[in-house]
Amino acid sequence: METYQSFTSNDQGGLQIAGVDVAQLAKEYGTPLYLTDEDQVRHACRRYRAAMEQNFGPRCHVSYASKALCIKAMYPILAQEGLWADVVSGGELYTALAAGFDPAKLQFHGNNKTEAELRYGVESGIGGFIADNREELLALEQLGAEYGKTLRVSLRVKPGVDAHTHEFISTGNIDSKFGFSYENGEAMAAARLAGSLPHLELWGLHCHIGSQIFLTEPYGLAADVMLRLMAQIKEELGQAPQCLNLGGGFGIAYGPEDRPVPMEEMVAQLAKAVERGCRKYGLEQPYVAIEPGRSIVGPAGVTVYTVGSVKHIAGVRTYVAVDGGMPDNPRYALYGATYQAARAASWQAPKTMEATIAGKCCESGDLVVKDAQIQPVEKGDLLCVFSTGAYNYSMASNYNRIPRPPVVFLRQGKHRLAVRRETYEQLVQNDL
Amino acid sequence: METYQSFTSNDQGGLQIAGVDVAQLAKEYGTPLYLTDEDQVRHACRRYRAAMEQNFGPRCHVSYASKALCIKAMYPILAQEGLWADVVSGGELYTALAAGFDPAKLQFHGNNKTEAELRYGVESGIGGFIADNREELLALEQLGAEYGKTLRVSLRVKPGVDAHTHEFISTGNIDSKFGFSYENGEAMAAARLAGSLPHLELWGLHCHIGSQIFLTEPYGLAADVMLRLMAQIKEELGQAPQCLNLGGGFGIAYGPEDRPVPMEEMVAQLAKAVERGCRKYGLEQPYVAIEPGRSIVGPAGVTVYTVGSVKHIAGVRTYVAVDGGMPDNPRYALYGATYQAARAASWQAPKTMEATIAGKCCESGDLVVKDAQIQPVEKGDLLCVFSTGAYNYSMASNYNRIPRPPVVFLRQGKHRLAVRRETYEQLVQNDL
Repeated sequence: METYQSFTSNDQGGLQIAGVDVAQLAKEYGTPLYLTDEDQVRHACRRYRAAMEQNFGPRCHVSYASKALCIKAMYPILAQEGLWADVVSGGELYTALAAGFDPAKLQFHGNNKTEAELRYGVESGIGGFIADNREELLALEQLGAEYGKTLRVSLRVKPGVDAHTHEFISTGNIDSKFGFSYENGEAMAAARLAGSLPHLELWGLHCHIGSQIFLTEPYGLAADVMLRLMAQIKEELGQAPQCLNLGGGFGIAYGPEDRPVPMEEMVAQLAKAVERGCRKYGLEQPYVAIEPGRSIVGPAGVTVYTVGSVKHIAGVRTYVAVDGGMPDNPRYALYGATYQAARAASWQAPKTMEATIAGKCCESGDLVVKDAQIQPVEKGDLLCVFSTGAYNYSMASNYNRIPRPPVVFLRQGKHRLAVRRETYEQLVQNDL
Repeated sequence: METYQSFTSNDQGGLQIAGVDVAQLAKEYGTPLYLTDEDQVRHACRRYRAAMEQNFGPRCHVSYASKALCIKAMYPILAQEGLWADVVSGGELYTALAAGFDPAKLQFHGNNKTEAELRYGVESGIGGFIADNREELLALEQLGAEYGKTLRVSLRVKPGVDAHTHEFISTGNIDSKFGFSYENGEAMAAARLAGSLPHLELWGLHCHIGSQIFLTEPYGLAADVMLRLMAQIKEELGQAPQCLNLGGGFGIAYGPEDRPVPMEEMVAQLAKAVERGCRKYGLEQPYVAIEPGRSIVGPAGVTVYTVGSVKHIAGVRTYVAVDGGMPDNPRYALYGATYQAARAASWQAPKTMEATIAGKCCESGDLVVKDAQIQPVEKGDLLCVFSTGAYNYSMASNYNRIPRPPVVFLRQGKHRLAVRRETYEQLVQNDL
C-alpha cells in the first residue's frame, strides 16, 4: 500500500515522524512507546472516502472498525474526516460515546452481544445493529417493543467465500462462529424472521470475509452472493434491504512480501462487482458500506523500544532484548506475525545485523520480530518496529504485570498524548 | 495430578466449589467470572513444601512463580503457607509488596529488567536477583556500589536440556532468549564476571527448562549439568554458589490425556538427581529451590460463562457462544490449548453434546475450547471451564474493549472478592 510519506530523517539520519524526532519523543514519554502518525491516519480516511464517493455517489459510507485501535482520540478524527464507526462491545461503544461521536453513525457488531450491551446500544440511539444470530434478533425485538422503537438491523451473512488467509482470521466460510450461512438457508431464514418482527427494520446485509486480504476477487465473489440474497429477499418479502455492507479485511504491508491492493483500486473493483451483481439480479444499486480498520491505523503506527541486552550466541542466533514485547504486541505469539524494524538513530542505514528481537516477558514465545534485519544495535539504542498501529495497543495485556505504554499522536510537527502510560497503582486498583 | 477434591454437587446436581454454589456466585458477581479454590491452592502449597522439606531438610524453599497469577490476594496465602515468591517485573514486585509480602523472600527474574526495575528491587531490599545477562550483572554491580550493598545474585543458566514441550514454552535450550548457555562457556564466564564484581555475591545457579512438563527425567539431566557447573565454579573460584534453583514447569492436567507427575514423586526424583550429582562432582548438598506456579493455581481455577447463542450448523459444527473468550483466556489463540468444560447445573451428567465453545470477540481465533464434550446447553445456561487458574487472569487483555472479569476466592464454604470487575470508566481512564 502506498502510504502518506511522513517518515523522514533529521540531519543526523535519525527517524522523524510527521516532522517530530523519535528520539525526542522517547526522551519525553519514555519507552516502550506507541506512536501514531495522525497525518497518515487522516490521509487514509480521505482516500477511502473519496474513492467510495467517486464510485458510489452519496449513498455510501466508510465505517472505521474500532477494534483495530479503540481509544478516545480516534473519534474526533473520524468525525472530522466524515467516517462512521463500528463497535463490537459495550466498552467500544462507551469509548466512542465518551469521545462525543455521533451515535447515529455507529453500528454494533459482535457474535454474542449480551443483553446489557444490546440495551446500551438501544438506549444510546445507535445507528444500527449487525445481528449475528437468531437469539439476538429475538432479544432486539423485545427491546424494540420495550422502548417503543423500530430498530435498524443488518444481518451478518457468511457468503461461503474463502479469502485464503490465516485460519484464525478467515470468517466468510460456513465453519465460522459468525453470522448466518448463505448456503444452507440460514441467512434467508434470518431475513424472514427479521422481516416478521414488528420492531425491527431489516436495513442491510453484511459480510466480512477475513483479514489481511491482498486480493480483490474474494470481495467480488462475496458481493455477488450478497446481491443474490438481496434479490431473493426482495422477491419473497417484497422489499430488498437498503444497505450492502462488504466489511473490511483490506491487507497492509507488514513486510516487503506483502502487496496490498491500493484503496482506490480495491474500491473500484468492489464497485464493478456491485454493478455487475445489480444488473444480474435486477436490483437498483444499494447503499454501500465498507469497514476498514487495520488499513487506516496500521501503517501509521510505530512502536519505539529501548534495547536492554544483546546476546550473540555463536552459531545459533543473536537475541536483542527490548523493554516491551508480548504484552504490547502479542501478534508474533498469536499469529507468527512479522514486522520491519530499524535502529531509530540510523533507520535508513544498511541493515547488516540479523537478530531476533525478543521481549522482556518470561515466556519463550515473547518475540517481537523473529530473524529481523536491522542496523547493528547495542544496549541503550532505540529500536523502532513499524506498522504497529492496529491490533497492538488494542490487544495489549498486563501479562507479567507490565503497564501498557502510552500512545502519542503526531501531526504536522506536533505531538500530543492520546493515552497516558499505565501506572503500577492502576495495575492493582481492583485488587482487594 | 491428584488434586484436593473440593468440587462437589448440590442436591440438584449443580457444581459447588469449596462448598459454595457456582450458580449463586454467578448471580452475585455476574459472568464471566474467575473462581479460585483457595482450599486447593493452600493444599498444593503444603504438598510442595512438605515434599521439599522431607527430601532436602531445612535448606530449601518453594518459590511461587507469580506470573501464573499475580494479584494481591495471593501473597498473604503464600506467606501463611511458608512459600517464597519470584517476580518478573516491577509490576509484579509492586503487587507483592503492596500485599505486604516479605521482600527478603522475593527473587527477581527476567531476561531484560530495566534499570528502573533493578533499582526498585535494590531499594526494596529483595532477597535476590536471577541475573540473565552480562549487561544486567554490570548494572547490578553499579547499583550495589551506589547503595553500598552487596547484592545476592543467581545466574540464569541454559543447561541445554530439551524438555519436549511446545516450542513457545521450552526454555532450557541454547537457542533461547533466556540466560547464559552452559555448553558454550557463557555460564562459566558469567560466574567469573559475577565473582569478580565486589558488590555482588554469587549466591546461586538457576535453570528453568520449560513449561507443562510431564517427565522427571529432564529435571534430572538439568540438575546434573547445574551441579557440574557448580563444581567447576568451586574449582576455579574457590567457592561454589550455595543455592541450586531448578525452576518450575511442572505440568498440570488440562485434559484426560495429560498425566502430571504427582508433586511428591517429582520432588523425590529431583532429590535423587541432586544426591547423585553431588556424589559425582564431590559437592555437599546445596540449598535447593523450586518455582512452581501453574501447578499451584492452575487446577484451582474455574471460569464461569453464560451461554449467549447456540448455532447448530448441520454437517459442520455446533458453536456455543459465551460472554467471554480470548480477552479472559487467550490460551487457545496462543497455543491451541484445550480445556474440560461442563454445564454448571448438571456438571456430572453425561456429556452428549459436541460443541466448539466460542468467545464474543470479533476474531475467528477467539475460541475457548475447540470440539468440547459438554452437557447440552442453551442460551442462559452457565458454562464452566476448568483448570483456568494459571495464565488466564494474568494474560487477560481488554481486546475489543472488554472489561476483565472479577476474581473470587473460595474457602471452606465462604467466598470473597479478590479482584473487582473492571469498569467501562477504567477502560478509558488514561485516554485524553
